[in-house]
Amino acid sequence: MVRAGIIGSTGYAGSELVRLLMGHKEAEIKWYGSRSYIGEKYAKVYRNMFEIVDAVCMDDHMEELADQVDVIFTATPQGLCASLVNESILSKVKIVDLSADFRLKDVAVYEEWYKIKHPSPEFLPEAVYGLCEVNREAVKKARLVANPGCYTTCSILTTRPLVKERLIDPNTLIVDAKSGTSGAGRGAKLPNLFCEVNENMKAYGVASHRHTPEIEEQLSRACGKPLTISFTPHLVPMNRGILVTAYASLEKGVDAARVQEVYERYYGGEKFIRVLGEGECPETKWVEGSNYVDIGFKMDPRTNRIVMMGALDNLVKGAAGQAVQNMNLLFGLDEAEGLEAVPMFP
Amino acid sequence: MVRAGIIGSTGYAGSELVRLLMGHKEAEIKWYGSRSYIGEKYAKVYRNMFEIVDAVCMDDHMEELADQVDVIFTATPQGLCASLVNESILSKVKIVDLSADFRLKDVAVYEEWYKIKHPSPEFLPEAVYGLCEVNREAVKKARLVANPGCYTTCSILTTRPLVKERLIDPNTLIVDAKSGTSGAGRGAKLPNLFCEVNENMKAYGVASHRHTPEIEEQLSRACGKPLTISFTPHLVPMNRGILVTAYASLEKGVDAARVQEVYERYYGGEKFIRVLGEGECPETKWVEGSNYVDIGFKMDPRTNRIVMMGALDNLVKGAAGQAVQNMNLLFGLDEAEGLEAVPMFP
Amino acid sequence: MVRAGIIGSTGYAGSELVRLLMGHKEAEIKWYGSRSYIGEKYAKVYRNMFEIVDAVCMDDHMEELADQVDVIFTATPQGLCASLVNESILSKVKIVDLSADFRLKDVAVYEEWYKIKHPSPEFLPEAVYGLCEVNREAVKKARLVANPGCYTTCSILTTRPLVKERLIDPNTLIVDAKSGTSGAGRGAKLPNLFCEVNENMKAYGVASHRHTPEIEEQLSRACGKPLTISFTPHLVPMNRGILVTAYASLEKGVDAARVQEVYERYYGGEKFIRVLGEGECPETKWVEGSNYVDIGFKMDPRTNRIVMMGALDNLVKGAAGQAVQNMNLLFGLDEAEGLEAVPMFP
Amino acid sequence: MVRAGIIGSTGYAGSELVRLLMGHKEAEIKWYGSRSYIGEKYAKVYRNMFEIVDAVCMDDHMEELADQVDVIFTATPQGLCASLVNESILSKVKIVDLSADFRLKDVAVYEEWYKIKHPSPEFLPEAVYGLCEVNREAVKKARLVANPGCYTTCSILTTRPLVKERLIDPNTLIVDAKSGTSGAGRGAKLPNLFCEVNENMKAYGVASHRHTPEIEEQLSRACGKPLTISFTPHLVPMNRGILVTAYASLEKGVDAARVQEVYERYYGGEKFIRVLGEGECPETKWVEGSNYVDIGFKMDPRTNRIVMMGALDNLVKGAAGQAVQNMNLLFGLDEAEGLEAVPMFP
Repeated sequence: MVRAGIIGSTGYAGSELVRLLMGHKEAEIKWYGSRSYIGEKYAKVYRNMFEIVDAVCMDDHMEELADQVDVIFTATPQGLCASLVNESILSKVKIVDLSADFRLKDVAVYEEWYKIKHPSPEFLPEAVYGLCEVNREAVKKARLVANPGCYTTCSILTTRPLVKERLIDPNTLIVDAKSGTSGAGRGAKLPNLFCEVNENMKAYGVASHRHTPEIEEQLSRACGKPLTISFTPHLVPMNRGILVTAYASLEKGVDAARVQEVYERYYGGEKFIRVLGEGECPETKWVEGSNYVDIGFKMDPRTNRIVMMGALDNLVKGAAGQAVQNMNLLFGLDEAEGLEAVPMFP
Repeated sequence: MVRAGIIGSTGYAGSELVRLLMGHKEAEIKWYGSRSYIGEKYAKVYRNMFEIVDAVCMDDHMEELADQVDVIFTATPQGLCASLVNESILSKVKIVDLSADFRLKDVAVYEEWYKIKHPSPEFLPEAVYGLCEVNREAVKKARLVANPGCYTTCSILTTRPLVKERLIDPNTLIVDAKSGTSGAGRGAKLPNLFCEVNENMKAYGVASHRHTPEIEEQLSRACGKPLTISFTPHLVPMNRGILVTAYASLEKGVDAARVQEVYERYYGGEKFIRVLGEGECPETKWVEGSNYVDIGFKMDPRTNRIVMMGALDNLVKGAAGQAVQNMNLLFGLDEAEGLEAVPMFP
Repeated sequence: MVRAGIIGSTGYAGSELVRLLMGHKEAEIKWYGSRSYIGEKYAKVYRNMFEIVDAVCMDDHMEELADQVDVIFTATPQGLCASLVNESILSKVKIVDLSADFRLKDVAVYEEWYKIKHPSPEFLPEAVYGLCEVNREAVKKARLVANPGCYTTCSILTTRPLVKERLIDPNTLIVDAKSGTSGAGRGAKLPNLFCEVNENMKAYGVASHRHTPEIEEQLSRACGKPLTISFTPHLVPMNRGILVTAYASLEKGVDAARVQEVYERYYGGEKFIRVLGEGECPETKWVEGSNYVDIGFKMDPRTNRIVMMGALDNLVKGAAGQAVQNMNLLFGLDEAEGLEAVPMFP
Repeated sequence: MVRAGIIGSTGYAGSELVRLLMGHKEAEIKWYGSRSYIGEKYAKVYRNMFEIVDAVCMDDHMEELADQVDVIFTATPQGLCASLVNESILSKVKIVDLSADFRLKDVAVYEEWYKIKHPSPEFLPEAVYGLCEVNREAVKKARLVANPGCYTTCSILTTRPLVKERLIDPNTLIVDAKSGTSGAGRGAKLPNLFCEVNENMKAYGVASHRHTPEIEEQLSRACGKPLTISFTPHLVPMNRGILVTAYASLEKGVDAARVQEVYERYYGGEKFIRVLGEGECPETKWVEGSNYVDIGFKMDPRTNRIVMMGALDNLVKGAAGQAVQNMNLLFGLDEAEGLEAVPMFP
């Protein structure tokens, strides 16, 4: 039985970890960390857990946690995990960090986009970027896993095979992403009020969102050379779901069959990635509550572009689900354990 | 392994049965019946099931089904199950009927409220009303289970202990119920269009909704004498969830402690019923996607009334979840098998 | 031209006042009060007003305001208006108070339900309860108008004619009300976040909501004797709209025709009240954005009860629209001026 | 008083025309055409119009209409208006066609994208494309106005000044558009059901949507040479609103100040176009229910691209509002008459 501790268990991503781990046959939660609710019953903060979780929220004490659990999930603001981690802790426990602290290899890029000093850049080299379908083998041997961002997971999985196989011109890549509101977190802020979000849609963080360099770093690696993208996130009046619509110019001679073949080759064996046929458009509701990513595409001969589309549940494959998938890899468990739930519709 | 067939598998209740049975360790679906989609891949009709369900939709052939499966679920319009069932079929297979055909013992009441002639009243006596927490032992021995309605399950479970224990005056009972839109089914009708339902709320079927006599029959039995209620359903702009707010005058000397004690006594041992403390109001989101029913209440000394409140997911405990729970009882399985999913929030 | 000042112009009710007054031909806003946004451009706080309102938010200075305007609207928390008003101010300016400060004639009742000491009970006698269709003549002569609450307006208008004409037993009256989320205000509170409200429904303030004594006082007056009601508000995942479903036992011999006749007699000449036929259920969307109240009812001979239903837009007839209607009465203008907008659908 | 007839008055665009014309001081509706509801009271089909519209729905009889009214609005499926119009009619009455029949000058393009034969191509040369801010003077003199599409209006107004002034490379233009569900019409189709749209998001009509050639024709004209764009519409779970996010590579030396200057020059004098500052992102809710278009942009020096954003209400400026604006121009009325309503928030 893998013993897990969660730091930041009362945010939406943290609570989704709790939900998923409750259905995991080989893991149990030993520590519900939440600095905001220390001493309160977890099930009081998340009433859906009434009579399911009996525990009380604890402080975020990583040293103490390291002695009690096998894996620590940090679902916390940027900078916190990096400020707590050290060699002693990593020698005792595996860490899956859901924040951005260890996602970018270049500390200067991190500090530029996140506007904070990185507290422990010495661990950046060993941290493994936990995009399971890409870095599976490396994750298995890791101590410290950087769980990818929600927009990032969707954007990379949707476009990477075509970038890597040089089917598209990497300099023309534009990612227009749409997200449900749970991605904004549980903080009590005016722009996230029901009446402000409902019956409304907007872009935000245009040309400046922090997931941009993360996508660029991974795709550059796949491409073999530096690549810069346009990335625009949007807020949608729904709880869950990310939809990515990505545009790029096709390289000469690339047709739908070739694209389909590449997607199938990369993802045909992946349980959690479902490749749709050419022209089929994924919908966020088809993956709600599940760890699936659905990917489709459409050729546009008039403009010589391709439109790539991907959909996932931002709290599952975009956060907690992928974290559990990483945990499964770290401990040699069945990669899908705890993640078998079928998408819920409607 | 229990082999299951579903007649009407492409309605919302039918598809929820599919979702739940995919996670059931001791049951497998052998027949996806759907008169509207014969010959089409099920996963084409419900795209969330892509790469999960490989089957093709079949006609509704109960005779044939009876030879191939152990249990038949009928998630079909009123009158269909009753017109297909016969002794030969019942001798081979168990039936869980999600329609109203066998819920009312009095055929005259059925025909008055449903405006159709009952095709097989001879099976009414043996049919067991499948409200598991109330009729558990009878269900275990049944051949034909009448799965309760969604509003009905919520209304009865919320009020029955107080009716049975004579804590409230049964003649004063008023049930004001609110439902998500999936309860209206997947039929392409103008009033169910997004733009008609969204940002809108209304009552419907006032003083005439068909779940009324079902609630009355069950509560009359609990009460020991005939009882008539006011029942008003409302349509709410959300996919899932039923909230019941019920009002009744308190019998002399009944206080909160007594009410709490009765609820605890009836439901303390029930996994799927969670009794909240006095004054706590259940929310539909606390039970979404799960088989739970949450029940709360508030005393109102000013009017000498009690306000009872119940919440459930209309597609789970209000339909498919309870059907699976009934199947588990019918076959001697763990009653909670396939129903362990924790509510999803947000 | 009536010069208007608004204290609390940046709440949802305040901003709705601004929206309505922008379309009023004989009024102009001279003062956008907002303690939270002093010095900020109003159109920065409400971006829909960009290039429409050029003003800057001012402090809440009632003395100064009284010299500059003809009418002051106070859309502020309980207690504020009552603490600012005095004889000198009232001698110079009319006040329409959208808070509850002057709605209840009995100061003890106010202090019990609102848990604050009333700062100026000496003005309670002269304050006129601004339910225009009931107190039209008194409003015309008033200096201080207590604008009714949103739930209250809907509850009273829906039930009052039947109470007053003794068609129903006043002791059996139960009001089950459902409201859109704008009623909760623009405060940044966790329970009002999109992800907490969306796909969710709950009751709140059961048997303790502050609009209860307000409804009771007005209906008691109509009834001619004290009356106590059960009142339960619910939160619905929509921006605007209140739906009231009210239950009462019918007095002997009352039939649908009699009820219809009474409603028509009371409201037939009222522009903003639309009486539907027996059995028709009002929908909140039919009145969205407008000052209308739609009222319907259904007889239930089985229980000898009547179900009365009313719908309005909580920000218009439930707050700002009625405030403008009161202003029109106060200044001898056409009662419908500025309120002619047709409901918006969808 | 301009007498107006509406063919197709019971679709969402038709009903919005009714709503707007009810508030128009110099127009009155003389004919509520609706083939689906002939003989039914209009207010029965749209209950928000109860006690406001007393008329009964009539057949679509253009010849007869031409004798009774001054302007005919056709809010009908493609091909209908073109099949009814003729010289005799046009000699008597002005036509504002909300369908696509007269939007494209090249009949071959029309027939390719709409898959129907154009019934009256002889009127294409004289038809004026009714994008008021672009073709104001031509509209004033027209007999037949082709009212632009909803996506089209938003896409063109957002990008046209930069295309015309050669600030962006026209071959790199990508338009990613998001629409509320009222754009899908009031037809009872499964994909438009509440439960299918709510909590969901998807692209549709990728690289094949019929508004594409309309945008291309107008922008090509502005550009002075043929231009091809990528256009992707998306369905969003909200009733109203279109948001356009458009991407293009900047021409050499173009900075934010230059872009702002061009937008201000084109739109500074336009009442219904509001230009936001650099970096500000428009939200659909800021324009809800109104005829405004809000436009913003953000420079992205990293990719040398600009992100242009536009928001409008698809039923107002995207359909009925613009149709009324065209009518005002046709009859020499104040261009804003009937369109003065302030956006409704929330």
